Amino acid sequence: MDANTFEIDSQLKQTSYPLVSLSVCDLRLVDDQRWPWLLIIPRVPHAVELIDLSPELRSGVWLEIDHVARVMRDQFSPHKLNIAALGNQVRQLHIHCIARFPDDDAWPNPVWGVGESVPYGSDLLTARLNNLNSAFA
Amino acid sequence: MDANTFEIDSQLKQTSYPLVSLSVCDLRLVDDQRWPWLLIIPRVPHAVELIDLSPELRSGVWLEIDHVARVMRDQFSPHKLNIAALGNQVRQLHIHCIARFPDDDAWPNPVWGVGESVPYGSDLLTARLNNLNSAFA
Repeated sequence: MDANTFEIDSQLKQTSYPLVSLSVCDLRLVDDQRWPWLLIIPRVPHAVELIDLSPELRSGVWLEIDHVARVMRDQFSPHKLNIAALGNQVRQLHIHCIARFPDDDAWPNPVWGVGESVPYGSDLLTARLNNLNSAFA
Repeated sequence: MDANTFEIDSQLKQTSYPLVSLSVCDLRLVDDQRWPWLLIIPRVPHAVELIDLSPELRSGVWLEIDHVARVMRDQFSPHKLNIAALGNQVRQLHIHCIARFPDDDAWPNPVWGVGESVPYGSDLLTARLNNLNSAFA
């Protein structure tokens, strides 16, 4: 494998499903039906911090974060969006976009590390992936 | 008070100290010496989500987030930066920029809600504010 090949971290892969690819980033749905939760992953080998990207790429990522946030708001009407680039557990650059509600399982705290994830199951997963892919089409 | 006056949320004010004002955002230092932790607060009345800002303002905020992240990296050489717009507890739009280290009190988890904050105390606070204000000058 080429050292400069882009590949998605195995832990991110194991806990999420692929959605559409945008111009700069891959999108994935986190497999936890407790929250509508997307990952925005710039297709840049070895990227860790947003400030490591070139200005052009970084602008592209910001625009795609905006786009994802709008789709999430349109689709789920959340009380609040949580947008975060943490990377403490998985170092590969990825940005979380999570729709939050006052009656969700973690509110008003962040979602990371709260309880056990609740996988979608195949029917709900298929519906959710289809809806989101249509929304991004 | 004019309904369109910008004012910083009282909870943010109580838990942080003012740093320099950038072109679009106010900066504040969170009063918790466990982590170098800045708040980036766009001076836009009633702003809640980044996508609510005009494209021009939003670009300005992104550029200032980049700037803050670079200063944080230069000043503290963190293992990872955490950059997040959550807003579950304080609805006013504010972006966290936190320097993280593998030996810090929350690693590898997020910092929010972990234990009790450890205030700087006057000497350490003054030094930290001076250093950061110089770095942003």
